[in-house]
Amino acid sequence: MRKIYLDCAATTMTDPQVVKAMLPYFADKFGNPSSIHSFGQEAKAAMEEAREKIASFLGAKQEEIIFTSGGTESDNFAIKGVAYANQKKGNHIITSSIEHHAVLNSCKFLEKMMGFKVTYLPVNKDGLLDPKDVKKAITDKTILISIMHANNEIGVIQPIREIGRIAKEKGIPFHADTVQTFGHISINVDELNVDLLSISGHKLYGPKGVGALYVRKGTRIVPFMHGGDQERNRRASTQNVSGIVGLGKAVELIKEEMDAEMKRLISLRDKLIKGILDNIGYSRLNGHPTKRLPNNVNVSIEYIEGESLLLNLDMEGIAASTGSACTSSSLEASHVLLALGLSHEVAHSSLRFTMGRYTKEKDVDFLLEVLPKITDRLRSMSPLWKH
Amino acid sequence: MRKIYLDCAATTMTDPQVVKAMLPYFADKFGNPSSIHSFGQEAKAAMEEAREKIASFLGAKQEEIIFTSGGTESDNFAIKGVAYANQKKGNHIITSSIEHHAVLNSCKFLEKMMGFKVTYLPVNKDGLLDPKDVKKAITDKTILISIMHANNEIGVIQPIREIGRIAKEKGIPFHADTVQTFGHISINVDELNVDLLSISGHKLYGPKGVGALYVRKGTRIVPFMHGGDQERNRRASTQNVSGIVGLGKAVELIKEEMDAEMKRLISLRDKLIKGILDNIGYSRLNGHPTKRLPNNVNVSIEYIEGESLLLNLDMEGIAASTGSACTSSSLEASHVLLALGLSHEVAHSSLRFTMGRYTKEKDVDFLLEVLPKITDRLRSMSPLWKH
Repeated sequence: MRKIYLDCAATTMTDPQVVKAMLPYFADKFGNPSSIHSFGQEAKAAMEEAREKIASFLGAKQEEIIFTSGGTESDNFAIKGVAYANQKKGNHIITSSIEHHAVLNSCKFLEKMMGFKVTYLPVNKDGLLDPKDVKKAITDKTILISIMHANNEIGVIQPIREIGRIAKEKGIPFHADTVQTFGHISINVDELNVDLLSISGHKLYGPKGVGALYVRKGTRIVPFMHGGDQERNRRASTQNVSGIVGLGKAVELIKEEMDAEMKRLISLRDKLIKGILDNIGYSRLNGHPTKRLPNNVNVSIEYIEGESLLLNLDMEGIAASTGSACTSSSLEASHVLLALGLSHEVAHSSLRFTMGRYTKEKDVDFLLEVLPKITDRLRSMSPLWKH
Repeated sequence: MRKIYLDCAATTMTDPQVVKAMLPYFADKFGNPSSIHSFGQEAKAAMEEAREKIASFLGAKQEEIIFTSGGTESDNFAIKGVAYANQKKGNHIITSSIEHHAVLNSCKFLEKMMGFKVTYLPVNKDGLLDPKDVKKAITDKTILISIMHANNEIGVIQPIREIGRIAKEKGIPFHADTVQTFGHISINVDELNVDLLSISGHKLYGPKGVGALYVRKGTRIVPFMHGGDQERNRRASTQNVSGIVGLGKAVELIKEEMDAEMKRLISLRDKLIKGILDNIGYSRLNGHPTKRLPNNVNVSIEYIEGESLLLNLDMEGIAASTGSACTSSSLEASHVLLALGLSHEVAHSSLRFTMGRYTKEKDVDFLLEVLPKITDRLRSMSPLWKH
């Protein structure tokens, strides 16, 4: 059976060229980059080359890139690290209600265990945050603003440039979770006025288990991982050299294709959205129609459980998701879709398709052929379906 | 030039069989194990197979193994997680003065930022901790005891079975940093009476960037990485599937060879120790001569800086270290050697050789041929050398 993978927001295939770049750093150039002998220095050189690639891609300095184990660690590090570093100054954090759980649950930990106060800003029905709300929420105790660049479920791109400008005016550190955007849409740390930025390798055809945190020079931050003096004393633990080399290679590949790929994916995305809305009754697009990631389609197909659709699509060889993979073991409706004002029922009928480098137009065509049939079949069996 | 790698405590070569086992999980079976479609389930199955291998190797249950990004994260998770979970009960932690910095600096963070009190127990001149000291240090506020199984610099193996028994009698959670021992000497969680145990992949011919924390069922622990509901809600972040598969394979390989390998390495170790002490004047072994890891030789060669020895050995193709790679950018003398009572001068003249699977007797012979010559040359240039 032909397999069609439309779940690139959950994870992407590691590009074979990335794997090839990583391979020498397992059994051949295997040194610990902290070791001063030649094995170590060879590993260190490769790691620093990757750091330089990532820094230049962001318009950042090399020493502003700290390697981590992935997006979740980067979010934890940014939020807890800035909170602890500034706790004498204040205890108030501003974020949004539709952040990834790595941000939300870090904030909730700080509230519950560490005495911080967190404002969770709402979004409008399209999933957009109003920068004016950020401005209004700021108090003299605010020490961090954390707003995601694009949402992992509905792909909506937030006005983080404006939010960054507000943060900068007030002298408040601004963190953006860019796990879904880094490598997919253009990011320059100065243009966006961000001070901290979370990156994950496996969302851009790099390996799992590696990521980075950009920290603007001068930003006060307490380490999250304590231990040895790696990463200039900011993140302990032997660096994942092969993973880091892979992340560097992934960025190099992305750089070459990003502009053309954005255009190609937007055209596929819009074809898929139109195809679904035109051919399936009682379906709706979740999230803003154009201020969204080039690869993201999130729809609700009412009167059916998203999970049933998913399993039926899987039987046809199509991989999609009902929302975030990170909460797939939870039975609760998506906090993101509820924040848009959807009812529990409609939220539970949602499906996310996220395309990528290996998605072809014929994959979208096949999905558009199969999805209405599955929908009809499932609706005909549903006691809720009266139409 | 022939290359001889004698720095296995810093990191090991990833075994080519491990690399082979990992490879399918990059570009082929690349799913996110949290995804419910077939790509995800295939990745999940591989991950759970690795978990089972590790659990059974330790005499643990599968659900007691939590995958992490490595030994440092496991130490941070164990110490901070148990401290936060028990802070209403007490705020006192017992550890030793020769722990790895991942433990020491996690403890210092809790002292400095979170109001915890930490007792750092001393060791004797051989590097051994006295279990009676642990018993004496316990107060009614003690909520965690963390003692490493074997030291990363001097290889001394602590009496953790006795310490575990004391902790168990008092009902205090006991964490052992087993990064240097897991896969190298026998570990059974029930025999050792440990409640938490830190594991690193790259110290046992597995990849960098992956590790695990064993947490005995019933042990109260707060997550360290907040976010999605991976690892039964105990450690957020998309799992590093290829790394986890590699760790599982590494354990499988280790299991087959461990007993024979221990004997082989002890014989090489003792040959190397004898060769150095017999042939180099003013040299001394650091750490207990027999209660030490099979692969560890740590010596001080007085009147020479360890770093000069290291660089000269490197020019001969031999990789060793002066101590922990994790603190190689620090100019301070080793906290471990100072704790044994060594002077700063003697501590600075130390060298660590750590052997492994790929170390041959002829490597040891070559080192024993080269080291006395380098020593003579460096001493002849040293203003301190008056003999």
